[in-house]
Amino acid sequence: MAAGKAGPDRGGDRRVDRGAAPMAELWRGGVLESTHLGHAVICDAKGIVEAWGNPGAVIFPRSSCKMIQALPLIETGAADARGLGAEHLALACASHQGAALHVEKTGRWLADLGLSEADLRCGAHEPDDRDERERLIRAGERPCQLHNNCSGKHCGFLTVTQHQGWGPDYVDPGHPLQLAIREATGEVAGEEISGMGIDGCSAPNFAISLEGLARAMAAFAAAREGQGVRQSAMARLVGAMILHPELVAGEKRACTGLMRAAQGRAAVKTGAEGVFVAILPGQGIGVAVKALDGGTRAAEAAIAALLVRLGAVEAADPLVVKRLNPVQRNWRRLETGEIRVAPGFR
Amino acid sequence: MAAGKAGPDRGGDRRVDRGAAPMAELWRGGVLESTHLGHAVICDAKGIVEAWGNPGAVIFPRSSCKMIQALPLIETGAADARGLGAEHLALACASHQGAALHVEKTGRWLADLGLSEADLRCGAHEPDDRDERERLIRAGERPCQLHNNCSGKHCGFLTVTQHQGWGPDYVDPGHPLQLAIREATGEVAGEEISGMGIDGCSAPNFAISLEGLARAMAAFAAAREGQGVRQSAMARLVGAMILHPELVAGEKRACTGLMRAAQGRAAVKTGAEGVFVAILPGQGIGVAVKALDGGTRAAEAAIAALLVRLGAVEAADPLVVKRLNPVQRNWRRLETGEIRVAPGFR
Repeated sequence: MAAGKAGPDRGGDRRVDRGAAPMAELWRGGVLESTHLGHAVICDAKGIVEAWGNPGAVIFPRSSCKMIQALPLIETGAADARGLGAEHLALACASHQGAALHVEKTGRWLADLGLSEADLRCGAHEPDDRDERERLIRAGERPCQLHNNCSGKHCGFLTVTQHQGWGPDYVDPGHPLQLAIREATGEVAGEEISGMGIDGCSAPNFAISLEGLARAMAAFAAAREGQGVRQSAMARLVGAMILHPELVAGEKRACTGLMRAAQGRAAVKTGAEGVFVAILPGQGIGVAVKALDGGTRAAEAAIAALLVRLGAVEAADPLVVKRLNPVQRNWRRLETGEIRVAPGFR
Repeated sequence: MAAGKAGPDRGGDRRVDRGAAPMAELWRGGVLESTHLGHAVICDAKGIVEAWGNPGAVIFPRSSCKMIQALPLIETGAADARGLGAEHLALACASHQGAALHVEKTGRWLADLGLSEADLRCGAHEPDDRDERERLIRAGERPCQLHNNCSGKHCGFLTVTQHQGWGPDYVDPGHPLQLAIREATGEVAGEEISGMGIDGCSAPNFAISLEGLARAMAAFAAAREGQGVRQSAMARLVGAMILHPELVAGEKRACTGLMRAAQGRAAVKTGAEGVFVAILPGQGIGVAVKALDGGTRAAEAAIAALLVRLGAVEAADPLVVKRLNPVQRNWRRLETGEIRVAPGFR
């Protein structure tokens, strides 16, 4: 279902439900049980290299655009003024699983700023990390905002806000930080913002085309330090993600596993509702995937397939197989089915 | 996208990914973020009353067909020989959440048979019930097979197996119980079995068309006690589900909530991978829904919409709104979006 080298200004309806292509399938007992449709785009500096479905589909990048949301952290000089290192920058781009590691590092970050968990605006949720979740239950403790998968991003937000002397309600769409992120999003996507929604962590999220998101990722991939403020910021964020895959997500998670499999050839980031992006610095390539129905398993299979296609990972690597072609097992560990990337993606 | 009164023998491809129609949408900030496609069929004793998508699509009913899998329990005489009541029959049709209530009742059922949890073949998994899950963690206990959402069905399987003097490996596709279920499935669906897969609980699951599943539910809806073995068995199972919605799923779950909202007008049952069925005894109507991508939120919205359409529930009932048109809130309880049934379903 490859759309080939479609032009960036293709017409037609930009609703996400227009023109979606088969993306991933669940097979059980030799019968196709479920199918996910979606869109995917590969871009380089010149535009679309290859596309599936409708590259013009307007989407919310959700957490896949955290590296865009982190640009003001570096570009305002806040990161350097506060002495942030690669670990901080990786956490600013993270959807982490609230493991002890993540809670400890984001807590220390806030303490170094003279702030506390109460200054965050992301809300609290149970950590996805099993050890930490069970520890909280055994200890009779409630999860705090540091456990929120976005707490690193919000630590970055607070760092900028403090450095600039801006007000505490940093997730308000009219807050200078969010206005700066909105502007940066339009710039790196190379298009107008198509809408705004509120994300799970209460921050604004800006709707852009999937092509715009892939173009933004290609810009991150092409960026080099020393080539101006924007490129330096982009390159540092990509470098930090690649250096600390365990901070960007966590053990057993797709982002961490795929980045480990890529061994420096790609930074990848998931977002809610079936979004996944990849940045391939060596090739100057950006990739963006959206499963129409928001299905994580489909987005993971598709991004894994595209990373294989682009030579960033090996299809036989167990870390890749787990996303590309996972065997489904039941509670007695019997094999019951498998996820397959749809034929057009293979 | 209503296909209208399509004939039962419609041609065309029966793969589930053929002819799916928009089913449910996620809206955020005024932008369509995600869309689920799917199929739905309403049947009465004469056949299809109304359909969306492809009624001939071959699907795995998964747990939505537990009332079919429970037919041998009554038809062999095992239920009466063991003195089973409506609670047992509701549990046999259940995908429960492993709450203390469910664990206690299935455990006692096995004890009454002189059997134990070790005789089950469903496997163990963490209960969905939060209180029981956290109790296990605090107590340092592992979940057992009674916590498996299918443990009631398996208690029913063991009851038949013991009564008939059949062997212990009751989930083997060649076991007399599974052969009986296969035969019953074809009979109530009014069609040949199209395939077999292994379910999450290790039992065989038989692929049939969505239309066949709706036809089967219509047969359950039309069944009356005293009208022969099959009809009596069907009517007793439907009556038990309606009498004990809390045993069929559990607090906060869709099946339990929708059955409470229906106040006796419908029995409903979910299945993995976006399947949902409804049985409306007063109207002799059966309904079957399959979300193409397996999305639970889409199947729940669609079955709620069809129950409203058929007058079985009120659209304004909070128990219905929660599935039909749920508001999405983030970790700070801010409203971020909503699920809407696709226009063709409204």
